[in-house]
Amino acid sequence: MENYIYGKNAVVETLLNSPERINKVIIQKGIGLDNRLKKIVNLCKDCSVVYNFGDLKGFLNENGEKVNLQGVVAYVSPVPYKDFQEFLDENKSGEYRKIIVLDGISDPHNFGAIIRTAAAGGYDAIIIGQRRCCPINATVEKISSGAVNKVPIIKVNSLNSAIQKLKENDWWIIALDVHTEDNYLNIDYKNMNFALVFGSEGDGITKTILNLSDYKVKLPTQFESLNVSCCCAVIVYETLRQINYT
Amino acid sequence: MENYIYGKNAVVETLLNSPERINKVIIQKGIGLDNRLKKIVNLCKDCSVVYNFGDLKGFLNENGEKVNLQGVVAYVSPVPYKDFQEFLDENKSGEYRKIIVLDGISDPHNFGAIIRTAAAGGYDAIIIGQRRCCPINATVEKISSGAVNKVPIIKVNSLNSAIQKLKENDWWIIALDVHTEDNYLNIDYKNMNFALVFGSEGDGITKTILNLSDYKVKLPTQFESLNVSCCCAVIVYETLRQINYT
Repeated sequence: MENYIYGKNAVVETLLNSPERINKVIIQKGIGLDNRLKKIVNLCKDCSVVYNFGDLKGFLNENGEKVNLQGVVAYVSPVPYKDFQEFLDENKSGEYRKIIVLDGISDPHNFGAIIRTAAAGGYDAIIIGQRRCCPINATVEKISSGAVNKVPIIKVNSLNSAIQKLKENDWWIIALDVHTEDNYLNIDYKNMNFALVFGSEGDGITKTILNLSDYKVKLPTQFESLNVSCCCAVIVYETLRQINYT
Repeated sequence: MENYIYGKNAVVETLLNSPERINKVIIQKGIGLDNRLKKIVNLCKDCSVVYNFGDLKGFLNENGEKVNLQGVVAYVSPVPYKDFQEFLDENKSGEYRKIIVLDGISDPHNFGAIIRTAAAGGYDAIIIGQRRCCPINATVEKISSGAVNKVPIIKVNSLNSAIQKLKENDWWIIALDVHTEDNYLNIDYKNMNFALVFGSEGDGITKTILNLSDYKVKLPTQFESLNVSCCCAVIVYETLRQINYT
């Protein structure tokens, strides 16, 4: 089945950032064009992307479910992954960089929200492993609000090897671990390259990766842990607060 | 249709915090009992809650979809709402209190994640309006990981009136508004009762409520806005950082 994305924001952002991914845009026939849909039509014209008006009422997602398309679907090529070695090599400015590593996020809502947070926070990349990670499907693209086209996503065969390589290249590894006692506020995120590592909601981070980490931190809570995408947002914004305002 | 919840955490937390809500627990027949499922069986015994083993394979959610039940469903009475006036009156300790007000969150994933964040952050209540708010359904309870039983939820006829009443009672109203320039870090969240107000992803906060607000703040971003539940988590944890660590 051809890849597709849906939802106004996801389509607008893909047209703005990666129009080359789009094969065709279909807008619901007879729908009133609001500002966002008008923007989509104009962007299609500007980028020479084929669009037409068709009947999307019977459109079902990859699980055979109806979803709220917001009147627009685009057929697309998959999100291109960035090469890990290339990413490591390309630090022209010499500025400190910050990334997110996902060790087995299987829920597309969480994955999409984390990509969006990484883009909002100006993070440099997201690294995912081959296994135990949700594919970048239409739900992920929708929830990311098109941010998949903004943040480089790197897929590696082995997260362990990638983390070892990061360490060899002077990166610090900070793992989110609900079983530790160390508060995330006690880390100084300034003046270093760092990777924030998040594990799956069920199992957390795999032991080997926890053992490779330089710091293990948690968010203090009065009730279990936070949703992983919320937890990620809290820490990303704490790093930004420290880097930009202290 | 009878209310139900599903998922191990949601059922465990409901058994721990509100066993009186549970009419019956059904565990998938023939499933291997892991620690969480064993805990559910033991909690049912301790709380005298009826449970049995049945076939859940054909179980469909309220939209007629299959969902990952994690082997357990519980039939429950609805989450009881807290009375607004009672909440206002009951500040025995005289300590400053903090709440979240939701002006039209329609996505159950966001609603559930916000409830979980409020519980994790020790917030005192969540206020929702009659209209434009997602009902507390099985998805919300699942995503909240059972936190619906931890944080008092107040449903009011008019959010405008509720906010006016809060102001009369010496609460400060802080609205999240992507159109403002004020950084959320510039507010001093200590030494006051405050309500953080979040609007719907599509429309934001209604104008009347924005006009009633004492502060309008936003998260600085390099790409659109964050997912509303992520945004909520960032601000909740900034308030906790200021209150507990500065």
